[in-house]
Amino acid sequence: MTVTERVRPGVDAGRLMEHITALAAIGATPDGGVTRLAFSPEDVEGRAYVARLMAEAGLAVRVDPAGNLIGTRPGIDPGAATLVLGSHIDTVVNGGAYDGAYGVLAAIEVARTLAERGVRLACGLAVVAFCDEEGGHGTMGMLGAHGFAGALPPGIAKVLDERGVPVGDLLAAVGGDAERLPEAAWAPGDIAAYLELHVEQGDVLERRGVPIGVVESIAGRVNVSVTVEGVAGHAGTTSMDHRSDALVAAARVVLAVRAIAAEEGVVLRATTGTCSVGPGMWNVIPGRVRLGVEFRDVSADRLDAALARLAGAAGEIAAADGVTVTVEPGARTTPVACDPRLRDLVAGAARERGLDCHHLPSGAGHDAQIVARVAPIGMIFVPSEGGISHAPGEHTAPHHLVWGADVLLSAVLRFDEAPVARG
Amino acid sequence: MTVTERVRPGVDAGRLMEHITALAAIGATPDGGVTRLAFSPEDVEGRAYVARLMAEAGLAVRVDPAGNLIGTRPGIDPGAATLVLGSHIDTVVNGGAYDGAYGVLAAIEVARTLAERGVRLACGLAVVAFCDEEGGHGTMGMLGAHGFAGALPPGIAKVLDERGVPVGDLLAAVGGDAERLPEAAWAPGDIAAYLELHVEQGDVLERRGVPIGVVESIAGRVNVSVTVEGVAGHAGTTSMDHRSDALVAAARVVLAVRAIAAEEGVVLRATTGTCSVGPGMWNVIPGRVRLGVEFRDVSADRLDAALARLAGAAGEIAAADGVTVTVEPGARTTPVACDPRLRDLVAGAARERGLDCHHLPSGAGHDAQIVARVAPIGMIFVPSEGGISHAPGEHTAPHHLVWGADVLLSAVLRFDEAPVARG
Repeated sequence: MTVTERVRPGVDAGRLMEHITALAAIGATPDGGVTRLAFSPEDVEGRAYVARLMAEAGLAVRVDPAGNLIGTRPGIDPGAATLVLGSHIDTVVNGGAYDGAYGVLAAIEVARTLAERGVRLACGLAVVAFCDEEGGHGTMGMLGAHGFAGALPPGIAKVLDERGVPVGDLLAAVGGDAERLPEAAWAPGDIAAYLELHVEQGDVLERRGVPIGVVESIAGRVNVSVTVEGVAGHAGTTSMDHRSDALVAAARVVLAVRAIAAEEGVVLRATTGTCSVGPGMWNVIPGRVRLGVEFRDVSADRLDAALARLAGAAGEIAAADGVTVTVEPGARTTPVACDPRLRDLVAGAARERGLDCHHLPSGAGHDAQIVARVAPIGMIFVPSEGGISHAPGEHTAPHHLVWGADVLLSAVLRFDEAPVARG
Repeated sequence: MTVTERVRPGVDAGRLMEHITALAAIGATPDGGVTRLAFSPEDVEGRAYVARLMAEAGLAVRVDPAGNLIGTRPGIDPGAATLVLGSHIDTVVNGGAYDGAYGVLAAIEVARTLAERGVRLACGLAVVAFCDEEGGHGTMGMLGAHGFAGALPPGIAKVLDERGVPVGDLLAAVGGDAERLPEAAWAPGDIAAYLELHVEQGDVLERRGVPIGVVESIAGRVNVSVTVEGVAGHAGTTSMDHRSDALVAAARVVLAVRAIAAEEGVVLRATTGTCSVGPGMWNVIPGRVRLGVEFRDVSADRLDAALARLAGAAGEIAAADGVTVTVEPGARTTPVACDPRLRDLVAGAARERGLDCHHLPSGAGHDAQIVARVAPIGMIFVPSEGGISHAPGEHTAPHHLVWGADVLLSAVLRFDEAPVARG
């Protein structure tokens, strides 16, 4: 029996859509979005719903000390490592119905489809809903994935969220256990591979008219705080040629940041997301401006090049405008490559389904980039309409959602026949 | 006896400096500034001190319904109109010791000097400390001057300040009377002329090394609210060539605003003082930015030209960046010319004192521009060190303060000998 004959019918499309709709109703906002912040009552309710679906799919359900909700099924081969599928179900404030949730629900649907058809895999199978991917309530984000990879920062349990609640208490609320965090870590040999299905959150697939994205790599990110110090002064009495206007210089920085990606192509993405002006009165020349900048790229070298280019531009602007411009790099995540064999596997699964695929980087961060510390990773994208994400307008057409789940199903079966990462 | 012989000794320099120092102590801030917001306990205390100085100068003191503190002395000629000297004693938050206060204290010193020397003027003399020039607690500003000129907006007594207190209650706290506001208005024929002595608040006189400024005109101002609407999006997933980044477009607006004054010379001053970004997160492309812009010029036509130029630039930026840019003119004050005869009078007074003078526009607003509705006005400036104003660093050298008061004294005497505005 060939793989194709075995799985052609694919997942239960109606059931998948029903589960997506039902989970989206938990934390639904009036304008069609979803607010299901990690550790919130809505998150707790959503996790209970997902745990029930895992059980219905024949998975053994548990919560690990890092708050990850895990459903497992052993393989035929007791010594075989586990193929892990997963994503997250928490959202940002007024986010969308698909980011994270789709990957978890599709993985459960794949497990259930396999169970219903009596397919037993040689390898073990685990579906993970990672805890707190989005950094709800000002937490670090990708908390569960860090625990899963044994990469949590020391003392994390005592760190307070923006409301003053320690992370340890947050974990307890979802069944985690701050005292036993090291037990959440999987050893590298335990995981055969990690596959994550996710909405693209960009518009590359939609613009190309391609239903399946094979993720090449997940971009790293560096945050940069830029402070411009000029001289505040009376907007009526200070002549134009004697000003050190911090906002005028900051405007040049904003344009320089954009140019570093858009015109100069030094880096994949460059964004100034915040701007605060002091003293911030209509009739006072701004004396101080703070900008929040971030660069993203799949290459750490290119992130460094962007930082260097920004420092250079800052120096030029400072000299020309008679201000000081301070560039301070802050939080940074490392770019991560997807495993080439898993990329080929996903491409083969799409081909088998008769679906075109396109290889692309992920500009957004994902749990996969943390899991990459202990396992080879692969990611599958489906199109996001208009590239909208983290907003009520986030949407993926039902047929794209079903095709993505079908490709994940085929990828699981193909992996089990030839477990690439064990080769 | 010539004018020169009569006044050569000038004002009492030590006494003037003592009064400036004493008033600056009321509301003094730890960093050397002054916070004496209109209607505050500090303002009430400052007004009581100034009222005492007025009485000591032989002036009859009263508070008019608009809260103006007025000291008067009748002239020899009972039918003669009154020469009014004045400014204000309220400050901004953490402002300086000289803005306003200097003009009031110097005028009182002039009146006292005349009284001590037994000089009786033909015309009546009034010294006015105008109420609430700075718009304390979010009030309209130049409140007393508007009442003095019969130009208060209808219903002003019921307007609330930023704390929710009606202006009528504020006025009552300083001895005003909202029920009798029309009685505060002076008829045009009652005022022979208005002279205001003030620190420049700019650096023109200092850079030229000239001790006396003869104000040609007081700039008008138009506030403009600029709103840029783009499309918020994920900073990691949205490709650079598919962005409608509101902050990038707003940066171009900030540079265009500056250019309208600095490079294009369309208007005297152009400033963007505020910038707020939505949603304002590091990892989200800004979808909406609001800028607070103001233009100042001594010509209303040039203010209109600047508005037209900004609208044109906004259209170009909107088309180039794929955003919408809305330009909404808001509050506006009309430029006001100083009376040419009073300018000559001040220049002659400076010459008589052996002091150089320079003719210049005032970029800042002053009570004089409101009084101009009912009287010919003249203004005298003294240098501001570094052009700093509305800040603790506001400073004018003592000899400049004394020379300014001496010029005011000479101007009063010369006016009385040949009352230009009655000619």
